[in-house]
Amino acid sequence: MKYNLAFIGFGTVGQGLANLLWEKRGFLRERYGFEYEVVVISDPLKGSVYNPEGLDLGKLLSLVKETGKVAGYPEGKKGWDSLKSIRESNADIVIEVTYTDIQTGEPAISHIRAALKGKKHVVTTNKGPIALAYRELSELARENGVLLRFEGTVLSGTPSLNLGLEALAGAEIREVRGILNGTTNYILTEMSKGISYEAALKEAQRLGYAEAKPDADVEGWDAVAKIVILANALMGGDVKVADVERKGITGLDISDIEEAREEGKRWKLIARAWGEGDKVKAKVWPEKIGPEDFLANVGGVTNALIVDTDVLGELTMIGPGAGGREAGFALLSDILSIHRLLAG
Amino acid sequence: MKYNLAFIGFGTVGQGLANLLWEKRGFLRERYGFEYEVVVISDPLKGSVYNPEGLDLGKLLSLVKETGKVAGYPEGKKGWDSLKSIRESNADIVIEVTYTDIQTGEPAISHIRAALKGKKHVVTTNKGPIALAYRELSELARENGVLLRFEGTVLSGTPSLNLGLEALAGAEIREVRGILNGTTNYILTEMSKGISYEAALKEAQRLGYAEAKPDADVEGWDAVAKIVILANALMGGDVKVADVERKGITGLDISDIEEAREEGKRWKLIARAWGEGDKVKAKVWPEKIGPEDFLANVGGVTNALIVDTDVLGELTMIGPGAGGREAGFALLSDILSIHRLLAG
Repeated sequence: MKYNLAFIGFGTVGQGLANLLWEKRGFLRERYGFEYEVVVISDPLKGSVYNPEGLDLGKLLSLVKETGKVAGYPEGKKGWDSLKSIRESNADIVIEVTYTDIQTGEPAISHIRAALKGKKHVVTTNKGPIALAYRELSELARENGVLLRFEGTVLSGTPSLNLGLEALAGAEIREVRGILNGTTNYILTEMSKGISYEAALKEAQRLGYAEAKPDADVEGWDAVAKIVILANALMGGDVKVADVERKGITGLDISDIEEAREEGKRWKLIARAWGEGDKVKAKVWPEKIGPEDFLANVGGVTNALIVDTDVLGELTMIGPGAGGREAGFALLSDILSIHRLLAG
Repeated sequence: MKYNLAFIGFGTVGQGLANLLWEKRGFLRERYGFEYEVVVISDPLKGSVYNPEGLDLGKLLSLVKETGKVAGYPEGKKGWDSLKSIRESNADIVIEVTYTDIQTGEPAISHIRAALKGKKHVVTTNKGPIALAYRELSELARENGVLLRFEGTVLSGTPSLNLGLEALAGAEIREVRGILNGTTNYILTEMSKGISYEAALKEAQRLGYAEAKPDADVEGWDAVAKIVILANALMGGDVKVADVERKGITGLDISDIEEAREEGKRWKLIARAWGEGDKVKAKVWPEKIGPEDFLANVGGVTNALIVDTDVLGELTMIGPGAGGREAGFALLSDILSIHRLLAG
């Protein structure tokens, strides 16, 4: 089967996916019978280009690398904004990879709404719309007979949502618990070597793990968005971001770290969601954990998720939690999951 | 969608699945739109019963618990053997859960062949046919337009094959490495506490983890069958059981364990498959591993699998590797995966 793809946003994650699609073109066709054309790319900074017959992805990737723009592409229609690209292009699958706004979810919520109403499948790594509007958007997808997938919103390319929704279908998930933010785990790992919070943060910023304004990570907001997504999508909850008890890692200093070490323990920023009565609750909080817990051994930017199910007890998944190529892979696995369901 | 199910074999694993299907009947219908009838159960020791309209599963489970037989069921046709039950019943999905014979794969290979030729989907936890005849059987499934799933052959209910085939679709798996046998891991964990091999084996037998004749586990044959399945199904290999370099744990004594402890390491029976040129190779061998390796912390009957992929690097999955209910869950997840593909 052949699909027409629309890229809404073409930053690190979008280009991560585009590179994978380009490199793996032959493999995807032979192994899965999956073929595609990229028909439109629309990015607020890089410009936009549309060709209903398909764009030359190799040429576009070089162009963006050299000029930072897609607008110099020699053919096709130029200047379509994101909503026009979603509504008026002949795309079957819309890839929403604009920036994350965890307060409003915009402009991504509007993009996803427009795509679903236009009966186009959506894949996204954007936490904003899924943390804030999962129920509305998943309902809209159902009404329009299309699929909405968002593997990359949690644990990046490491299977978490598709693991829960597909491989663990049939099980009831009673609790999830994990290290969902790589930046804070990197900082805590460095601090456990005797480095101060400030120095560890600076190093994380130098390596590109932390933003100049690091609050979304270090105050726990990123982990909150992710645990809300897990609580709602995997456990059937109706948890809002504001409902989540939250504490970041900025209150921890080197004496806390030392104290934990003396007890044979390590500080980790733990995100947790659990069933309580017929409700699902969630919390993000620093915890001191001992070596008997697999999470204690998860260091650096690695992420981990422990899923407690009725039938199997605890399952632990450990893998990379960030990176443009890894997030691009999450989108690819969502696209192939849609293909598997459509091709039957 | 509604499916007719045939149980070929009705031991611990078959009853594990039957109990899950029975307990979760409402949940499966509401959550996944999955409905079923069990139309035939055929077991060489417990007898057989067939009713094309469906059997009362609750009644059957009580009957087997009380009498050890299905033959006392008040209605339906009796005495159909396994091949007749596969060929002449109106089942859509055949559940192959007879005993494992890792030398010949029989009678399971003949059961699976008959089912696929009759255009019936097959789910199995039986390592024999998949380790010995994966290529032939998967080709036969393709030719007949039906599906063959076998999640429970490796890591029991913990996702391993469906993880690789579905959640990691799009990635190329370069190496898999893991603790695939719970019995030997239990014995090694006990030995690390200072107990002798003989005493640890005896305790494993008492707990039902090891057979009276424990060779299949302690000599590494069970792990060999599993790594062959992973090598062939996940990595596209053509590895035969006889090709696998194999050493069990019977050569390890308490002084080896002590020596490892002094080095801060632990002995584990590690199964490994890796690409070499355009071939896939596999090995099962005891290894001394350090605490930086997640596998070192996997104790008791728990299993673990590390998958090394081109895009994501290493992913680690840890979970239960045995148990009738867990293996029953593997079959349920395979059945739901077939349902997902058919219902679209």
